[in-house]
Amino acid sequence: MEIKTEIITIGDEILIGQIVDTNSAWMAEKLNQIGISVFQITTITDNREHIMKATEESLNRVDIVLVTGGLGPTSDDVTKKTLAEFFDSKLILNEEVLASVKKRLEERNIELNDLIRGQAYVPDKCRAFVNEWGTAPGMWFETNGKVLVSMPGVPTEMKGIMEKYVIPGLKHKYRLPAILHRTLLTYGTFEAHLSGLLEDFEKALPDNIKLAYLPSAGRVRLRLTAKGDDEKKLELLLDKFEAEMVKRVGEYVYGKNGDTLEQITGDLLRKKGKTLATAESCTGGMVSHLITTVPGSSDYYKGSVISYANEVKINVLGVPEEVISKQGAVSREVVEQMAAGVSNKLKTDYAIAISGIAGPTGGTPDKPVGTVWIAVKSPEKTITEKFIFGFTRLENITRAAYTSLNMLRKLLLNESFQ
Amino acid sequence: MEIKTEIITIGDEILIGQIVDTNSAWMAEKLNQIGISVFQITTITDNREHIMKATEESLNRVDIVLVTGGLGPTSDDVTKKTLAEFFDSKLILNEEVLASVKKRLEERNIELNDLIRGQAYVPDKCRAFVNEWGTAPGMWFETNGKVLVSMPGVPTEMKGIMEKYVIPGLKHKYRLPAILHRTLLTYGTFEAHLSGLLEDFEKALPDNIKLAYLPSAGRVRLRLTAKGDDEKKLELLLDKFEAEMVKRVGEYVYGKNGDTLEQITGDLLRKKGKTLATAESCTGGMVSHLITTVPGSSDYYKGSVISYANEVKINVLGVPEEVISKQGAVSREVVEQMAAGVSNKLKTDYAIAISGIAGPTGGTPDKPVGTVWIAVKSPEKTITEKFIFGFTRLENITRAAYTSLNMLRKLLLNESFQ
Repeated sequence: MEIKTEIITIGDEILIGQIVDTNSAWMAEKLNQIGISVFQITTITDNREHIMKATEESLNRVDIVLVTGGLGPTSDDVTKKTLAEFFDSKLILNEEVLASVKKRLEERNIELNDLIRGQAYVPDKCRAFVNEWGTAPGMWFETNGKVLVSMPGVPTEMKGIMEKYVIPGLKHKYRLPAILHRTLLTYGTFEAHLSGLLEDFEKALPDNIKLAYLPSAGRVRLRLTAKGDDEKKLELLLDKFEAEMVKRVGEYVYGKNGDTLEQITGDLLRKKGKTLATAESCTGGMVSHLITTVPGSSDYYKGSVISYANEVKINVLGVPEEVISKQGAVSREVVEQMAAGVSNKLKTDYAIAISGIAGPTGGTPDKPVGTVWIAVKSPEKTITEKFIFGFTRLENITRAAYTSLNMLRKLLLNESFQ
Repeated sequence: MEIKTEIITIGDEILIGQIVDTNSAWMAEKLNQIGISVFQITTITDNREHIMKATEESLNRVDIVLVTGGLGPTSDDVTKKTLAEFFDSKLILNEEVLASVKKRLEERNIELNDLIRGQAYVPDKCRAFVNEWGTAPGMWFETNGKVLVSMPGVPTEMKGIMEKYVIPGLKHKYRLPAILHRTLLTYGTFEAHLSGLLEDFEKALPDNIKLAYLPSAGRVRLRLTAKGDDEKKLELLLDKFEAEMVKRVGEYVYGKNGDTLEQITGDLLRKKGKTLATAESCTGGMVSHLITTVPGSSDYYKGSVISYANEVKINVLGVPEEVISKQGAVSREVVEQMAAGVSNKLKTDYAIAISGIAGPTGGTPDKPVGTVWIAVKSPEKTITEKFIFGFTRLENITRAAYTSLNMLRKLLLNESFQ
């Protein structure tokens, strides 16, 4: 039997677009890890009728309802009294919660007032979870074999209560099948192309394994999900099907699960004991920014010359002026000279160089907006390619940056097999 | 009459916690700006029955339903055929959509296959919106005076279709009261401090004007919202209250509405006809990246030396080796030398230089993680400051980058009054 959950998020801040609901994604991931699938996420207003209706509907849809938000001490937070009404329950003083609230206030030199004291009143038909990270307790209700848990919306408080009480409580209550995920990360092709290559593979998958395509900006994630009772068996099955997928689309695969191109490229450089510099024009520092978001990148990354102006290409990187005037700044010759110049100047083994037209202006019939030349250089050779991304300015910059990292990754891999 | 909307997000990626739903917050903000409130956000599975049921329920609850996701060409995307079934509609070839899809593929040298061709089939009972940013068209259905619009889940595609078709379409269809916003952007202080300075101002606001505090990473936006029928009157009212706010918190205000620090700083440089270079260590290119996201930044920005390794600080920027060994790379002396070095090397009027400890490692009792020195240099003087941000790596990098832009903005403003 599949256990289904719904997450109800109560809060006007999300409905007016003031904050992004990151709680639900965190909760969904935690639940999936223990084999509980999230069937629906519903964000509703801080309003009695809306809460009553949404609660009733979701208890009809699913087995477990996890509610966050609306538990502050002020009068615009109505979740607790509405749930008490829904479960036909009285609010009574919970001494354990009161003691915890008092302790918390004392530590912060805040005096107890009636508003905050109200946090210690909980419905008599629920199990209360003391909130060590705030004042509003978690509340676990059961009705007709179903579970509803109410938690505060503050992320640290919700996460604390989920990890300490809710996840163990659900594990204890339900017998759950194992659910395992395996994600292959691809770069440089399209969902439709990949799905063509994997069409018969996908059709031949057993019923308990599913393949999903998750595309985003130049990248497609291929996710296999396996469900079953025997976790070891599932791992072996996933190993087998993952290997099968790599056979078919391996040339596009750059990593697995939570990997990033910047971290994988960095790991390859570290493993080889090699160093990298970049010379960026149209990407304006984004490649360098991506590389240095990885902790420890100073092990292999020396720095960059952002040669936004042609004179910087000439004076700092040593690109000959006549090459720029003859070929244009966006050309094979210029990026190759930039790559050579920066690896020479910064004394590195490898280099990335990029020059292009990010837009929205600066395009010509010959070189439209989105035209980008990228060179990656090793001690042995330089690989140079031209791309026409043709998106918005920021998207062109982003695509060029990631594409350059992927080219470097391939070069590093090829050379390690020589 | 209040127009109510519901957003339905279709996608298993959100329900397994793999991605955070940022689309809904963006859509909610856009809708609120034109006076349409979002009553509920519902995230559901990629499943026919679930889509049918959720669509029916939400058309009962609200006036407008905006659906995103599930429009990819592969078989796991069932939104289009399900909506066709829901609206009792046939899928027919739309020549305009097909032409756009073909054009997009040609530009990328991809061959049309049946899967992609399928994107051009749309339900005959909807108005199709050509998707310039991808292949799946937007679809506008009307039923019993209510509207349902289906859009792709890829953020750039959804945003493009919302801005070009959906927002204007909804404005045209419904008669909405005028809602005007005016936002002051502040940097360098806290919400609690600002709300103290604005306490009596806020209390004296008329009923149809509201003030909201929107804090995020070092920045607080102060948003005035005015509702009413007479747009001109509202503009005048907002002018008055905005001026009043500037009087009280003006020293923290760097811009208005959609302004960004990078664009405002750039405008000041352009106006003065001056040029800028940056020298970045711990920020690793983020300042340069921010500056060059602004179209036309090549008018004033010449480039950067990302001196991640100390040898680059020494060899390229000319920081004396003994200054680094005596003072440490994260010091007043080093950032001042970096600023002088880069403006000299790249021949610019102004310079930004940053050196710090982004973390998670590299901190010492003297210089904990998050310690950052920033120098901004003009032809006349250099302003240098030390900060201890003390957040995660990416947050430290981001704070340092924006803080440096704000310091440059202030320097540029001060000098123009001399």
